[in-house]
Amino acid sequence: MKYGIVAFPSKKVQDFANSYRKRYDPHYALITPHMTVKGVFEADENEIKLIAEKVSTVVKNHKPFTLKTTKVSSFAPVTNAIYFNVQPTAELLKLNEDLNAIEYNDEESYSFVPHITIAQKMNSSEHDDILPQLKMIGVEFEEEIDRLHLLYQLEDGSWTAYETFRLSGAE
Amino acid sequence: MKYGIVAFPSKKVQDFANSYRKRYDPHYALITPHMTVKGVFEADENEIKLIAEKVSTVVKNHKPFTLKTTKVSSFAPVTNAIYFNVQPTAELLKLNEDLNAIEYNDEESYSFVPHITIAQKMNSSEHDDILPQLKMIGVEFEEEIDRLHLLYQLEDGSWTAYETFRLSGAE
Repeated sequence: MKYGIVAFPSKKVQDFANSYRKRYDPHYALITPHMTVKGVFEADENEIKLIAEKVSTVVKNHKPFTLKTTKVSSFAPVTNAIYFNVQPTAELLKLNEDLNAIEYNDEESYSFVPHITIAQKMNSSEHDDILPQLKMIGVEFEEEIDRLHLLYQLEDGSWTAYETFRLSGAE
Repeated sequence: MKYGIVAFPSKKVQDFANSYRKRYDPHYALITPHMTVKGVFEADENEIKLIAEKVSTVVKNHKPFTLKTTKVSSFAPVTNAIYFNVQPTAELLKLNEDLNAIEYNDEESYSFVPHITIAQKMNSSEHDDILPQLKMIGVEFEEEIDRLHLLYQLEDGSWTAYETFRLSGAE
């Protein structure tokens, strides 16, 4: 079974992101707008219990963090995905690092670029066409994230909730 | 903002339910297959914190329960919704009763019929046409539910995770 750990921004930011995702992101109906904190990994139902305990311990040791978006960017030419950038604060990078220190069944090797995807799976001409328009929208949001969610994927590609972890740490 | 409390069955049951929801349930893309334990209520962002604390206290005092489905039924003629029935065990009814004892901004007055919807919003002839077929599918599932999820609804109708509560009580 595939799992991932995400932060959901506020309803306001999710509604705003969805106004673009609805048109530009084929994953629109599979998951609500999110920032991935730990990318997809495989686990069976027994393994996930142990992993969830470890995640719980890590998250409990972190305090709520500020999610701040300032602009729209793109991962092109690596991949045609357009996103709200999220400031890679020291606290967010440390949270990701601590979560990655847990042993998962994956080989995640790319670096962590916190973001909220709003468009993906376009061909290059579509991408190049909409990027300048999307770059002009105002995406200055700043809010506190006080919890992470462990999700798993169903056969149809949609993601469902497994557990919530509160960022209750003092530092 | 609209909130609700649900139990998600196992991936196996969700995948099975989705194989029907995909065709027969226009809410298919808005939420993964679920059993509602406390129906929709309104709360603002401050109210929900207090309500979530109360829900947490209630859920903590209940132990995991058995979710057992035995057949496909319909709410017609009240509403054209078809569902996997879930056995209304004493423990499940008590959990619902205790959750309803919390003060919400709603006027829920109908009785609790635990179920997992697989088809809805059909006209009567569609309903009458597919019900006999759906009644023939085998839906004998039995599994343990050890957590509930508090969800909230975005403007596009989709539901996103707010918090998970573990049924960690001794009784």
